[in-house]
Amino acid sequence: MRRAFDPTLYLVTDTALCAPRSVPAVVAAAVAGGVTAVQVRDKTASRRDLLALTRAVQEVLAPTPQVRLVVNDAVDVALLTGADGVHVGQDDLPADEVRGLLGPDALVGVSVGSAADLDAVLALPPGTVDLVGLSPVWATPTKPDAGAALGLAGTRELATRARAAGLTSVAIGGVHAANAAAVAATGVDGVCVVSDVCAAADPAAAARTLRGALAGRVPA
Amino acid sequence: MRRAFDPTLYLVTDTALCAPRSVPAVVAAAVAGGVTAVQVRDKTASRRDLLALTRAVQEVLAPTPQVRLVVNDAVDVALLTGADGVHVGQDDLPADEVRGLLGPDALVGVSVGSAADLDAVLALPPGTVDLVGLSPVWATPTKPDAGAALGLAGTRELATRARAAGLTSVAIGGVHAANAAAVAATGVDGVCVVSDVCAAADPAAAARTLRGALAGRVPA
Repeated sequence: MRRAFDPTLYLVTDTALCAPRSVPAVVAAAVAGGVTAVQVRDKTASRRDLLALTRAVQEVLAPTPQVRLVVNDAVDVALLTGADGVHVGQDDLPADEVRGLLGPDALVGVSVGSAADLDAVLALPPGTVDLVGLSPVWATPTKPDAGAALGLAGTRELATRARAAGLTSVAIGGVHAANAAAVAATGVDGVCVVSDVCAAADPAAAARTLRGALAGRVPA
Repeated sequence: MRRAFDPTLYLVTDTALCAPRSVPAVVAAAVAGGVTAVQVRDKTASRRDLLALTRAVQEVLAPTPQVRLVVNDAVDVALLTGADGVHVGQDDLPADEVRGLLGPDALVGVSVGSAADLDAVLALPPGTVDLVGLSPVWATPTKPDAGAALGLAGTRELATRARAAGLTSVAIGGVHAANAAAVAATGVDGVCVVSDVCAAADPAAAARTLRGALAGRVPA
């Protein structure tokens, strides 16, 4: 059975930004502070290390089963760990192939950086993709290969179309406590954060601040 | 049902060395020249590109089903393509995890660079690993992260232990037409080649020359 996914404050991990703390330690603190979903992303790790990292994050998430765990790109790692889903970018395995491997109950997310990317997602059979990650809202050093910034207006446009199609949408790229409410007000279902939590001196406090900012958000 | 795997002349692809020719074009020529098994390896390709590459190689191998296709590292790509197996190095997913995902009929190969690596393989439940890739026989620029060279004596020692344990063994690293017979004489079941075929002006002729060299090999 598919389990509910709360995208309100979706943490995407960055191993280098978490250092010298471990990723699981930062995730544990972030969840204590109010993160609602976690995506393990480490494009430079070997598959063996990514498997170990994913399992370690799973362990710290065990007491909070409502916080879903998604693996970036690595479908094999998701299958081995029984993670809740996979998020793929435009260079990763195609979403329909990912859905085929993971089955109907997994969460499949896709990065969408343009109207054309969203068109491609909407052209897939219903049920292939659950979530679109609208990105980047703003240019960000944590993902230098990202495309042109969508800005708030572009994010709103894509979020509106995603919502009309029944897709969950989150916004990612340069989201911080100071702009989270404005991003949420574009109509996305949640915001993704990387550096604002991973690089924070106190990740729990950073998550708490973000949740506070989102609580005051203007409904779409 | 598991299908026979002929490791006699096992081609491991290198996209950069094949260029400007496509990998499938080089594979087709190499198989015409006598390559008996193919491993698609491209550590720099995105998963999306590796999936497309693997399918393209599968297409050129369709007329020669006795030539098995193995995917390096990418278990998800092997699952999606129905390739015959996966070869993992020491940084890739652990062999027992790979076997769990692929099931009993797939070929699972593991890189072994030392007696300790072979000990680890032999400590796994029987049937976990089918093949060990003894490497590198000699230092080679196509895999700069490889460990210390085994030499012929070290290769013979590991091949003898692998054979006693019922594992297929192949030798890889610096194998060329001029030394293939000496490598085969160590008792391995086959030799792997990369640059000697991928970088050859005429890959079919290169494979034919290698087969000729192997045909004169001294039985172990």
